[in-house]
Amino acid sequence: MEDQKQREQASPEVWKRVQDSFDRQGLMSHLGARISHIAPGRVHIVLPSRPEVTQQNGYFHAGATSAIADSAGGYAAFTLFPEGTDVLSVEYKINLLAPAVGDHIEAIGTVLKSGRTLTVCTLEVFGVQDGRRKLVANGQQTLIRANRQAQ
Amino acid sequence: MEDQKQREQASPEVWKRVQDSFDRQGLMSHLGARISHIAPGRVHIVLPSRPEVTQQNGYFHAGATSAIADSAGGYAAFTLFPEGTDVLSVEYKINLLAPAVGDHIEAIGTVLKSGRTLTVCTLEVFGVQDGRRKLVANGQQTLIRANRQAQ
Amino acid sequence: MEDQKQREQASPEVWKRVQDSFDRQGLMSHLGARISHIAPGRVHIVLPSRPEVTQQNGYFHAGATSAIADSAGGYAAFTLFPEGTDVLSVEYKINLLAPAVGDHIEAIGTVLKSGRTLTVCTLEVFGVQDGRRKLVANGQQTLIRANRQAQ
Amino acid sequence: MEDQKQREQASPEVWKRVQDSFDRQGLMSHLGARISHIAPGRVHIVLPSRPEVTQQNGYFHAGATSAIADSAGGYAAFTLFPEGTDVLSVEYKINLLAPAVGDHIEAIGTVLKSGRTLTVCTLEVFGVQDGRRKLVANGQQTLIRANRQAQ
Repeated sequence: MEDQKQREQASPEVWKRVQDSFDRQGLMSHLGARISHIAPGRVHIVLPSRPEVTQQNGYFHAGATSAIADSAGGYAAFTLFPEGTDVLSVEYKINLLAPAVGDHIEAIGTVLKSGRTLTVCTLEVFGVQDGRRKLVANGQQTLIRANRQAQ
Repeated sequence: MEDQKQREQASPEVWKRVQDSFDRQGLMSHLGARISHIAPGRVHIVLPSRPEVTQQNGYFHAGATSAIADSAGGYAAFTLFPEGTDVLSVEYKINLLAPAVGDHIEAIGTVLKSGRTLTVCTLEVFGVQDGRRKLVANGQQTLIRANRQAQ
Repeated sequence: MEDQKQREQASPEVWKRVQDSFDRQGLMSHLGARISHIAPGRVHIVLPSRPEVTQQNGYFHAGATSAIADSAGGYAAFTLFPEGTDVLSVEYKINLLAPAVGDHIEAIGTVLKSGRTLTVCTLEVFGVQDGRRKLVANGQQTLIRANRQAQ
Repeated sequence: MEDQKQREQASPEVWKRVQDSFDRQGLMSHLGARISHIAPGRVHIVLPSRPEVTQQNGYFHAGATSAIADSAGGYAAFTLFPEGTDVLSVEYKINLLAPAVGDHIEAIGTVLKSGRTLTVCTLEVFGVQDGRRKLVANGQQTLIRANRQAQ
């Protein structure tokens, strides 16, 4: 698995393009999330456990779980887009399968279908405790390619 | 509208029960969100614009939009639950209809169907700028009633 | 309500365009469904109760409920499209709120957001028995405009 | 793959229980659908191409695609339920990824999470032409276990 992940690493150009966009997302750094892997059509985002991301029982809040899932899927799509384009979420659906607990959670966005206009991704979020992983959320997301906005 | 909202105000007991649970959600205060209205089967949550809740173009991040929508729907369901129960999101689906911009966004969760085990809510999020409101996201959510966990 | 429905009637041209496309949907006539109303941005489709559309307990099958909901939303979007275009469902999500029973069910698709490329509709399905209506399903749908295919 | 499918075959008791329920679904036989495989937590349903299941361009109608996907997921959940229970769809979401064409389509419902009350399934639908398979729809479904109704 680790070997396969290394082989599937995105090019430095793609990695930079994704990381630059991620760094402009105020929410991601405010939550404490970071990108842990970028492959063509697949991005991993990690969020460590902190009181600032919890719901009323101390689990990761579904909003935090969804936020990193949404970003992981968006950047997974973005890895396959040409230069000068941007990505916007059209919609997503997510099932919260189990209480999201662990040292950290990891969201994996994977491109299922890459079209000219629309991209569809699958979203998975795992709770990770002492190296053991458990699927805590699973979703599906539709994204649209847009021309980059002048900024 | 304002008059109607006053009439539909939840009882002080329900308001306290919802506010107490909300105050235990670390994510909501970390984002800067607050409850602005509680009626039986309907809860409004407001999130002011801040760099800490943005995506790469400076709009509200879909994750922030979803987080307050998810909480608004969850607490809308919770207003109809008996004492000693808790609410958990089973799943939700949200369409991001327009860039979420404004002084603040407001999420409204409304109970559509209240069952013994499952509750279904509709979710709306408005971008509000100088008092003008625009629907920026619309969703649908399924929740489950659980017995309160000892804490 | 009836008065309002009359006022909101679509033009004969739009009605014809929608009905012609509907008549080419083999599934709709095979199920026994028919269009009962067309307004700009809203279409109603009725499906009478028959053994041919049931699930294992004799209720309307979720697949039949969804099929007319999907068509109602698609044609609601289509009423707002220019001549020479076609409509395709990108995705939809539907909650089955209650057993779908009645003399017939009626699906109502309503355009929530009409964009250049994408349209978002809300979907409602009612069970109707002796004139009494009960909401049995509620959904949300994303559609895309396409150029008409030569046939 | 074929070998693995043989190994994973459900017991004759489960196969009978699923097939009996399927045979009571009027919609499935009216569409011309049949169960092609039953494994613990996974059910395949096949629908041959016929004019009776088409949309306006001659593709399989999204409603037909969804109907067999919904049944495949429901019966996948049902394979893991104890005797004397029934299964109901709570909700599902499906992305139509490509025009559904082929000699037949095949829906595969697979249990992702099996809980006491709720089960979550993934749904895939393939268009099959001359033995070649293409993913045409992908979805996610929530189901609830119910006590069998006296009939």
